[in-house]
Amino acid sequence: MALTGQLRHVVVLVGGVGGAKLAHGLAQILPPGALTVIVNTGDDFWHYGLRICPDLDTVMYTLGGLVDRGQGWGVAEDTFTTLDALRRLGDDPWFRLGDRDLATHLRRTQALQAGWTLTQITEHLCQMLGISQRILPMTDAPVATIIETTTEGALPFQEYFVKHRWQPPVRALRLEGLAQAALSEPVRAALMSADAILIGPSNPWLSIAPILLVPGLRDLLMGRAVPRVALSPIVEGRALKGPAAKLMVELGYEPSARAVAAYYGDLVNGFVYDERDAHLQIATPATATFDTIMHSDTDRQALARKILSWIESELV
Amino acid sequence: MALTGQLRHVVVLVGGVGGAKLAHGLAQILPPGALTVIVNTGDDFWHYGLRICPDLDTVMYTLGGLVDRGQGWGVAEDTFTTLDALRRLGDDPWFRLGDRDLATHLRRTQALQAGWTLTQITEHLCQMLGISQRILPMTDAPVATIIETTTEGALPFQEYFVKHRWQPPVRALRLEGLAQAALSEPVRAALMSADAILIGPSNPWLSIAPILLVPGLRDLLMGRAVPRVALSPIVEGRALKGPAAKLMVELGYEPSARAVAAYYGDLVNGFVYDERDAHLQIATPATATFDTIMHSDTDRQALARKILSWIESELV
Repeated sequence: MALTGQLRHVVVLVGGVGGAKLAHGLAQILPPGALTVIVNTGDDFWHYGLRICPDLDTVMYTLGGLVDRGQGWGVAEDTFTTLDALRRLGDDPWFRLGDRDLATHLRRTQALQAGWTLTQITEHLCQMLGISQRILPMTDAPVATIIETTTEGALPFQEYFVKHRWQPPVRALRLEGLAQAALSEPVRAALMSADAILIGPSNPWLSIAPILLVPGLRDLLMGRAVPRVALSPIVEGRALKGPAAKLMVELGYEPSARAVAAYYGDLVNGFVYDERDAHLQIATPATATFDTIMHSDTDRQALARKILSWIESELV
Repeated sequence: MALTGQLRHVVVLVGGVGGAKLAHGLAQILPPGALTVIVNTGDDFWHYGLRICPDLDTVMYTLGGLVDRGQGWGVAEDTFTTLDALRRLGDDPWFRLGDRDLATHLRRTQALQAGWTLTQITEHLCQMLGISQRILPMTDAPVATIIETTTEGALPFQEYFVKHRWQPPVRALRLEGLAQAALSEPVRAALMSADAILIGPSNPWLSIAPILLVPGLRDLLMGRAVPRVALSPIVEGRALKGPAAKLMVELGYEPSARAVAAYYGDLVNGFVYDERDAHLQIATPATATFDTIMHSDTDRQALARKILSWIESELV
């Protein structure tokens, strides 16, 4: 399946590992400059004085080819000298920071404190890592996803996700800092010029909802008469990675691709889910089923190509 | 020369490498708890979002036995993975931060941002490093030594000292943040209970003057009727390390132990200088000359023992 070239600019909304894999597949089959990745920053946090942006880093490291492929995040073959030294200083470092990874956080923090926007420093880091796709934080304002749990109270995202290994049952989610958050001009321009807008197989509640909550973003997206296609992160009732299925049950949803499609509703006009779930009745106007599980680079490219080809033939 | 034990509590005021060596000598010959080291924090700065306290770290690493002996600061056999990665991100890291060293800055920054005082986190770090002497920052308030140079304008200390390798000629010095700085209770208590107060062979203008400028400290020191003894950092007209002699010339002083003694004036009632300078006429009431160059641990112990013995026999 060769692409026809109708899609000159594709935008994909993603969170961390799963979304980064799809973005990587898209990056490999689209020409340089044809892909913009808009990334959740609700997971961002301050830690040891540093601004850490886990989803941005995962996407950067994945597209830059330096990601730890085994775990899907962090830098390949990183060392942990500083973290080991922190332990000797009596600290209990629950967030795994590699020595190479640390450089990203130091550089970013210094730039932010010198007055750069998160968009600017992300662009600079991408240049230095030789990434030819555009990676944009969903907003330059600091926002924070707060997880209301039934056992541990309200937890900032990384404490829920990493420190507590997403085990505490979730009662509700909220995003702090929205009132001060604005759509950045690059995000607006990317969405306005997109020939197709994808939503990656990221957690709809934890990773995609924060992006959609950036003031003005959802309306802008809804107003674009282009293919708007989401990919289900749920296959056969289970999350490919992370707490998506568990979270759906806790929030009162059926853990299925169908419930994901229903959650996105008319935000999307196309929905892709796994061929193993082909029996599910999905209400989205256009649907397609593929093997959505991406193990290898080849899997990523193949899935990205199938999705774009389907969009070109059925939705454009 | 065995010490008589009259000096149950010795306080020494120091900056970085030279002062740390004397403190180390004192630490080795005094019983645990008998030594308090009050350290200059005018060199402290924010870098990459981290609070870095070079003199405190040098003293901690020296007394904790993990200092890089070759250079006198930093952690022995440290690695520089993060710094190398910063270079690959386009940064020009002029301040050398080792991977193990970084852990100190991360831990300190996190503690400060959690509301600890610099005194508290320093005490905690010392405990974790197994240091049985008390190491106190001169104040908990952030103060900053600013170097007015004739060629580069006003430079924060580390930019003058490290980035520009103390080459720009100095016109004047000033300390920012003094108005908000207070004498900490531990520093006050240490000075009040000291049986002898030493001033290490640190740079009088860059390292000792900031300590003496902490509001109330100089008066408190002057009011103590105990031996107050400074050690010259100048030997045969040259600084043992760093810019002391060069700075003296630039500020209009003769680069000599005599000028150092004159600078301290009646703040001290005893002055120790190198036996190579024994011909100098020093106005301080009591003086002693020793071999003040400390290469080995034995040198440090020997000099510390000679100074304390002399104080016990001549000044107590």
